[in-house]
Amino acid sequence: MFLVCRMQDEVIENLIEQFRTLPGVGYKTAQRYAFSIIEGGLERAKRFADAIVEAKEKIRFCKECGNFTDKEVCSICQTRNKKIICVVKDPRDIISMERVKSFDGVYHVLFGTISPLEHRGPDDIKIKELLARISKDNVEEVIMATNPDVEGDATAMYIAKLLKPLGVKVTRLAQGIAMGSELEYADEVTLSKALEARREID
Amino acid sequence: MFLVCRMQDEVIENLIEQFRTLPGVGYKTAQRYAFSIIEGGLERAKRFADAIVEAKEKIRFCKECGNFTDKEVCSICQTRNKKIICVVKDPRDIISMERVKSFDGVYHVLFGTISPLEHRGPDDIKIKELLARISKDNVEEVIMATNPDVEGDATAMYIAKLLKPLGVKVTRLAQGIAMGSELEYADEVTLSKALEARREID
Repeated sequence: MFLVCRMQDEVIENLIEQFRTLPGVGYKTAQRYAFSIIEGGLERAKRFADAIVEAKEKIRFCKECGNFTDKEVCSICQTRNKKIICVVKDPRDIISMERVKSFDGVYHVLFGTISPLEHRGPDDIKIKELLARISKDNVEEVIMATNPDVEGDATAMYIAKLLKPLGVKVTRLAQGIAMGSELEYADEVTLSKALEARREID
Repeated sequence: MFLVCRMQDEVIENLIEQFRTLPGVGYKTAQRYAFSIIEGGLERAKRFADAIVEAKEKIRFCKECGNFTDKEVCSICQTRNKKIICVVKDPRDIISMERVKSFDGVYHVLFGTISPLEHRGPDDIKIKELLARISKDNVEEVIMATNPDVEGDATAMYIAKLLKPLGVKVTRLAQGIAMGSELEYADEVTLSKALEARREID
């Protein structure tokens, strides 16, 4: 631990404090960001400030899927195959999934998972909305992409049970050892899942 | 390397791009910051934006020492002992020095070091201004706190030679092994400086 002295003038301190509200940003990083603003041009500072306010003012949730968007319906919902829905916990999970360029379906954000410990039941997340989309759009497959933890698994199971009677195929992202990871450091649960789901090499 | 797909709407993309202009911020970190803004309140976004523009508009260099300040003369120059000047390369070095709470003197920012390789001579940094302050304020000691590298050392030597005839005591921050570091990983130059400057234990 070292002492961090705050001898800067108030205006700089204020900017540093603002940067500190960002996730994972400590005092020294915030200070570095603040200096970068101060040393940059006025135009850049204004563009930066405008982008912050504009994003906050314009971004809302897509009324179809719950993704962040600046339109009423997000660009994914507008252009892609609605017969396949990938169900995620959080809007930011959509971005991770979008890195897989081959996925052509749409998304559905639950805004949470079922969690008895945190008193969150099925009615507290967007399951009803998912059911409505399934009947409206004649959905063929629902891919459960909630996190591979207790709550994510439980939520996936719950939704799968709800949807099977409706004749919808429900799948879950495969669990196993991650690409590029080392077996030596894999935990038992992951290894046991990977063993269970082993596939024949052809 | 993994692919980063950019399927977000333009407004989010723009905010992410702005965060990417900060030093050391890549796409994923910028995205995390952007989401934190979007998920936060409008008030917070406005405060953040205002702080950025305000800092850029109000912060200038102290006309005495070159420190960042929102006044004409910074709070350090206004309140502290002007008989001791600590000479640094850059305004941000002042903040590092200020962590040493025991230092009660003032600063002088050179805005660079002498560097023949980059065609920067004594006239390109604020040496004349330092000389002016020394005669004006009856300075007793000048502490050279430029970086412990070739340019920093050369600049310190140059200024020391200039000042000695004026009867000013010129000192240099001690070089040696850093507190908490391990001897095993110290480089030869540091070790040789530490050996040279060894002190008797009393």
